[in-house]
This record gives sequence, C-alpha cells and structure tokens, in this order.
Amino acid sequence: MTKLLTELAAIVGDAHLITDPADQAPYLRDWRGRYEGRSQAIVRPANTEEVAAVVRLCVAHGVPLVPQGGNTSLCGAATPDESGSAVVISLQRLNRIRYLDFDNDTLTVEAGCTLAEVQATAAAADRLFPLSLASEGTCRIGGNLSTNAGGVHVLRYGNARDLVLGLEVVLPDGLIWHGLRALRKDNTGYDLKQLFLGAEGTLGIITAAVLKLSPRPRSLCTAWLAVPNPEAAVALLRQFRSECGERLSAFELMSQPTLALVLRHIPGAQCPLSEVPPWSVLIELGDTRADAGLDEIAEAILAPAIESGLVLDAAIARSEAQRVALWALRENASEAQRHEGVSVKHDVSVPVSRIPEFLHRADAALLAAFPGLRIVAFGHVGDGNLHYNCSKPDADANAALIGERGDVNRIVHDLVHELGGSISAEHGLGQLKRDEIRRYKSELEMDLMQRIKSAFDPKCLMNPGKVL
Amino acid sequence: MTKLLTELAAIVGDAHLITDPADQAPYLRDWRGRYEGRSQAIVRPANTEEVAAVVRLCVAHGVPLVPQGGNTSLCGAATPDESGSAVVISLQRLNRIRYLDFDNDTLTVEAGCTLAEVQATAAAADRLFPLSLASEGTCRIGGNLSTNAGGVHVLRYGNARDLVLGLEVVLPDGLIWHGLRALRKDNTGYDLKQLFLGAEGTLGIITAAVLKLSPRPRSLCTAWLAVPNPEAAVALLRQFRSECGERLSAFELMSQPTLALVLRHIPGAQCPLSEVPPWSVLIELGDTRADAGLDEIAEAILAPAIESGLVLDAAIARSEAQRVALWALRENASEAQRHEGVSVKHDVSVPVSRIPEFLHRADAALLAAFPGLRIVAFGHVGDGNLHYNCSKPDADANAALIGERGDVNRIVHDLVHELGGSISAEHGLGQLKRDEIRRYKSELEMDLMQRIKSAFDPKCLMNPGKVL
Repeated sequence: MTKLLTELAAIVGDAHLITDPADQAPYLRDWRGRYEGRSQAIVRPANTEEVAAVVRLCVAHGVPLVPQGGNTSLCGAATPDESGSAVVISLQRLNRIRYLDFDNDTLTVEAGCTLAEVQATAAAADRLFPLSLASEGTCRIGGNLSTNAGGVHVLRYGNARDLVLGLEVVLPDGLIWHGLRALRKDNTGYDLKQLFLGAEGTLGIITAAVLKLSPRPRSLCTAWLAVPNPEAAVALLRQFRSECGERLSAFELMSQPTLALVLRHIPGAQCPLSEVPPWSVLIELGDTRADAGLDEIAEAILAPAIESGLVLDAAIARSEAQRVALWALRENASEAQRHEGVSVKHDVSVPVSRIPEFLHRADAALLAAFPGLRIVAFGHVGDGNLHYNCSKPDADANAALIGERGDVNRIVHDLVHELGGSISAEHGLGQLKRDEIRRYKSELEMDLMQRIKSAFDPKCLMNPGKVL
Repeated sequence: MTKLLTELAAIVGDAHLITDPADQAPYLRDWRGRYEGRSQAIVRPANTEEVAAVVRLCVAHGVPLVPQGGNTSLCGAATPDESGSAVVISLQRLNRIRYLDFDNDTLTVEAGCTLAEVQATAAAADRLFPLSLASEGTCRIGGNLSTNAGGVHVLRYGNARDLVLGLEVVLPDGLIWHGLRALRKDNTGYDLKQLFLGAEGTLGIITAAVLKLSPRPRSLCTAWLAVPNPEAAVALLRQFRSECGERLSAFELMSQPTLALVLRHIPGAQCPLSEVPPWSVLIELGDTRADAGLDEIAEAILAPAIESGLVLDAAIARSEAQRVALWALRENASEAQRHEGVSVKHDVSVPVSRIPEFLHRADAALLAAFPGLRIVAFGHVGDGNLHYNCSKPDADANAALIGERGDVNRIVHDLVHELGGSISAEHGLGQLKRDEIRRYKSELEMDLMQRIKSAFDPKCLMNPGKVL
C-alpha cells in the first residue's frame, strides 16, 4: 500500500477503502458501459468530516478526485479517466435523512440517499418531493443535484436546482461550506449554492441538502392523446397551461416510431387508442383536492380540441392500473430502443415554440444525409426538451451509422444551436459533451466558467476532465 | 469637461451626460433620503452597446461605476459613495420590450422597463408576470433582478431569481455576455446567470432578461382572518398549502399594532372584522379556472378552523372593491408607520417553523432592553419573511432609540442568526448591511464571494462599497 492509501484507510477504515481490481470494477464503469476508467482506490467515507479529510489528503498528494453517487450518469460524469491517478469518492454511505421540518416544508438529506428514499420520506409525511426520473431507485440525490436533474415533472415543479434551499459542500481545499439554510428568502450576497448545483462535482462535493417539499396531490388525471403533428401538441400545451395552471404536471410527447417500438418490445404494452397515432401526448393533471374534478376539466378542454382536429383521439385513465399502464408506455421508450441495438442519442432543448420547427428540420436534414434512418423522438415537450435518437433497423447499417455519430450529432446540434437551444438539456456534459460544447458556447462564456473553476479549484483536482 | 466626460458624451450624446449638480441630484440620493453620494457624472446610455462602451471607457480610466435602475433600493445599493469619483450609469433608457414568445411563455425585456410595464405586457397577452411589490410603478426590472426582489407572491411563484431564464450582461471589462436563453432546461456547465441575479451590480450590469410568464388567474379569493397568535398562523398556512396547493398565492401576517397604525393614518382604511385582532392573516387564492369555487374552498377550510379556535374571525372579499381594500390594509403598512416618524427596520427571514419562536423571543428581548418599545411586525409569513420595525411613540424617546439602532439590530439579528435565518431576506445588503453581514456569514463564505468578485471584477470598479 502506498502512503496515500494507508492514510486514506486510516480515515475511512480498511473496509471502506477498495483497492482490489474486481471490487473496484463496478465503480469504474458507467452503467451503460460507455466509459471505463481506472483509479488508485475507491473510498467510501461515512460522513461529511470523512469526505473533507479524504479531500484534504488527496489535495496534499496532488491526487485527482472523482465524486460518485449512484453511478447513473448518462454522460460519464462519475467515471474516472484511464490514467489510474484518481481516487473515486463514493458518497453512498452518506445516506441519512437528517431532518424533516414539517412546518417549513423542508427535508434535509445526505448526498447518498437514493432519490426513491427521498420521495418515500416526503410521501410518509404526506408531502411530495417532485423530482422523478427513470433511475430514481438507484440514483443518489447528491448526483441529482450535481447534474441539476430534470425528469417528467419539471413543467410544474422545476429542475433539481429549483427544489433546493441549502447545501453542505466539501470544497476543493477540504474545507466544509455549511450552507444548509432552510430559507425561502435570503438576499445576503452571491447565491453560492447555485454554483455547485449542476457543476457535476467540478467545484466541490455536495454532501447534504435542504430540499423543498410540495403538497401531495390527492387526485390525478392521466390521459393519452393522439395529435396530428408537433404544432398541435404545442397548441394543446398552451391551452392546458392556460386553463389548468399548475395542475398540469406532465406533458410528454412521443412520435409514432417511438410508441411502435414500445408496443413491439415491452411485454404487456398495449396501445390505449384504436391505432398508433402519428404523435402521442401523455398528460397528467394533479390537484391537492380529492374532489378536484380533473377528468371533467380535461374532458372540457379535449371536447372542442377533438372537434377542431387539434386532438385526434383521447383515452383518460379510469383506474390506477390504467394510469400506471399509460406511464409505462412513456417510461419504457429508452428500454424499447435498446432491444434494437445502440442508437445515436441526443438530449436537447429549444424554446417550446421552436419544437415543431426543430422536429421538421432535423428530420428532413437527417433523412437527406442518412437515407433509411429511423428517428425516435420523445420527451418533455412542456420543457422544450426532446430525446432525439437515431438508428438504422439493419444491424450492419446501424454499425456504420454509429461510426458516423459525429456527423449525426453535427446536424442535430447545429440546428439546436441555431434555434437558441441547448445540446444538453438535462443530462449534463460530463465527458461525453465536453468537447462538443466548445463548439457552441462562446469563448467568453467558457472563459467565465474557467474563471470560476480556477477561483474554487486552482489545482484542478475536482473531477478533472468533466464539463470544462 | 475632463477627457473622460468628453468621451462619455461622445458615446451617449451630450443630452444624456448629466454633469450639472442640480440635474444629478435625483440620481445621487436614494428615495428614502438615507444615502446621498456624489459622482463625476450620470450617463444615460440608450442600448446595450452604449452601456458596454461606457464600461470600457470607465475601466480604462480606472473610474468606478454605479449601475442604477429605478433608484428604489432600500439599502443604498444604487447610490454612489461620497468621494465623487464614480460615474452613475442609469439604465432607464434601456426600456424596450424586446420579444414576447407566446408559445414559450416568455418575455424578453430590457433592464430599464418598470416592473409595472412588464406586468402590463404580460397581462395584455393574457399571462401573469407574478413579481409584485410596493414600488412596482417606479422600480426597474434590471434592479429587481439585481436584488433578487421578493414581494407578496413568492410563496407561489418564487423570487425574482426563479422567474428568469436568461440574461444579457455587460461584464466589468465591458464585454457583453449574450446569455438571453429562453430554455427551461439547459445543463451545459455552470449556470452563470445565477451569479448576476442578486449581486446588486457588483459583478456586471444586467441589460436585458428573458422572463418566465405564468398562466393568468381567472378567479381570486381574498380573505382577512383573525388568528390568536403566530402559531395559529403557521398551522393555518400548513392547512391551506396542503389543501389548496399552488392556489395559495399570498399568506401575509400582520400584528395588531401594525393594523392599528394603518387604520389610524390611512384615509378610508377600515377594519374588515368587528375588532382589530391580535394577529391578522391576509390570504389570497387564485385559480386559472373561472369556476374554481375558491370561496367555497376557503370556507370549507375556515369553518373547522373557526370551530377549533385556530381562526377567531374571517371576512372574505365579495367584490373587487373589497379585495382591493383588504390589500390596501397590507400594502399601507410601511406608509402608515412613516406618519409616526422613523423606525429601526429589519427585513429578516427564518424557517417558517421558527416564525412564532422568533416573534416571541424578539419581542421579549427588545421590550426588556427598550421598555415602551412599539414593535410593528408584518410580512410574508409564507416565505418566513418578516418586516420587523421598532420605534417609540414619543418623538424624543424615538430619536434616542434611533441613536441606539445598532443595539436594536444586534438583538434582532443575533436571534435571527441563532434560528438559522437571514438578516436580509428580500432587500439585499447594499451599503446598509455590508458591515453587518460580516458578523453573521462565515469567513469561508465571505472568502468564496470575494473569490468570485475577484474573478469577474479584478479591478473592483463595479458598484464598489456594496455587498462585499
């Protein structure tokens, strides 16, 4: 054992310093198998003080640090590079629910709690923690906050950033910033917590957070709608927002090929309408009142919309089982694609008003450049966020396409940029888009980011090779 | 004219360079007359490029800059110091509404638009821009964003920070950061806009912003409630939040002495209940649906609350005139105090759950230290934000109290700090609390703020003497 490893073991205990290659493996490879790195060791500190001690020690040795939560990043943000110089800090043992403040509607949790545990704790207190996404059983709240996670309820409740009142952070020099405030108003200088939210661990390690809770909905209305085109989806979104206000908690769009894949590959999946529509919209309304009459409200909006052709067909879930079945169609979109091989994926956003233009122009440009391309488009249209994935049905042709992924990316990302959009709406940059972003962000903005990085982490030891 | 002034005139035109002392005066004194400074000149650029040129010129001359919007700061954030070395940049001519994106629910405005103009533009498009505060006819949106303004609807819609998707900023080196994004999801690195929001012009000058709009409520229910104590107010807040969700758009608390002052000094003010209650709560529910039945919802919550003694009495506004009258009671709280002379004011926040403890302990400690003190407490209890103002009814005694304002502050702020609160909830630090904050914020946090300041404004020319 090197001196560093001996000292790390003295901090976290022998049982929580992992040096054996086989035991390290799960921490060194991202869950999709896209990134695989090496490390000197994995350390699993038990609390904030141990995290701070580990950081101080590594900094003293000039050793890079890679913070890791549930290791569910979609862009390699939590995987070390191949040099083997880094130490991976797993936050999984910082998993205490510290404090529920009932009258303040806040929950203080440690970074290593899974998102599902946070949700369950809120639910047990008759509250809602609204962040919700596919990996919620595995991902950890520290990672969610470090990537400013999005998900299916951003339309109503905002991104992860919007759900945080305070943070505790171990800084790159090993000092602990005690910013666990539980205040809804605090105008006493720069809002430091905003820097760590979405920084993907490059400015410090989030060890705990004060989260805002919301009232729990007591009635829900979930419906599957057929619309003729993306323009109709945007018009319908406007109408639901205008008439339902915050009740509208999800508005998801799904193209015909996407739904077809789900119906083909997911056992038990059934089309809720008589035929697979050109475009599907999944909406959900939620209300704190048990007697909110949400079905009637939805029907009152849908009847004239069907009359005018804005909506082609509609099915409202009449039971919890039906509601779960509708959501499963949406949630299995990624899983269904996997059955047909790898695809070139994009996680993009544009202003909601530009969604139709984006889809028409991206489709046309890609089909011209890659004849026979299959485009699987779906996403959180209420947030202007689309997952836009490209593949070819034939395996050999698809392998060739994957080899040209850079050209596919270029067409999609150039258009996104032209429309004032973002090439990473909710997944972050990580390793995946670290070079790509330099093409689209101004030099000035990259310079401002670099100035912040240098001000906080002058030795550049916090999650190097990510973001910047 | 000095060389600097000649060059400034060349940028903005002679008509918009103000050097005459009498003409400068309104820009050099804050509206409450608490701060008065001097400047080389007031410049009134017409657009972002002129702002940038002014900044570059002043930086080249080593001249400090003080950005100013509507000059309605409550903490001297927009007033130059007494040295006379600074140039004041008024943003009032940057007053164009640039773009309304109907389908994206966003409005792009320049910094010099008044808050009322922004609200009116949204209303004309059947939308709501929810930021609302006493100075809305005069304050400018750039100032609102630079101070992360709060107001009466934060409970539902958040602070100014939460209403912004993108910013255009002239940086301290005179470069323009084009960050006018209109995206609800964008995870491509550090969220730079957050740094400028609430920075009180110390990191750059906000010249334009993309604002989020909300659906416009079509029905409202406004009620004045009597409660026995702050504990009852917090319990009632919890109940309304739980049962009404986002419908609850205001929850304001007002002590007996506060309402008594309003009734005494504001012409036409009438108590809506048979007697002035120990504590009053003003609630407002809003719904996008015209047939939302808000009165019935409120009554259904209030009936058992009155039965159990949580609420002593209640009056629901039955007309728009009555609604306006109830709000006037709350909105005239500050004005009514002015009629009885100056007071020692506090703008503090604590977790909502600590509001009762704060009020009981602060009252007890202050009355022990300053017998005969009149405490006027009111505020946005839904946000944990109280305006807590102290005076003595007798003019001489009050003058003595004002002389001891530091001791009054100490009692209040020490308690706020002990309860995990903030000594400036919504007004900012400005000049007023620049020293005071050093007592309560950790050295580490001050150091982090200073590192950001140095990274953005190494010459320290942007609004010096404010915040840091």
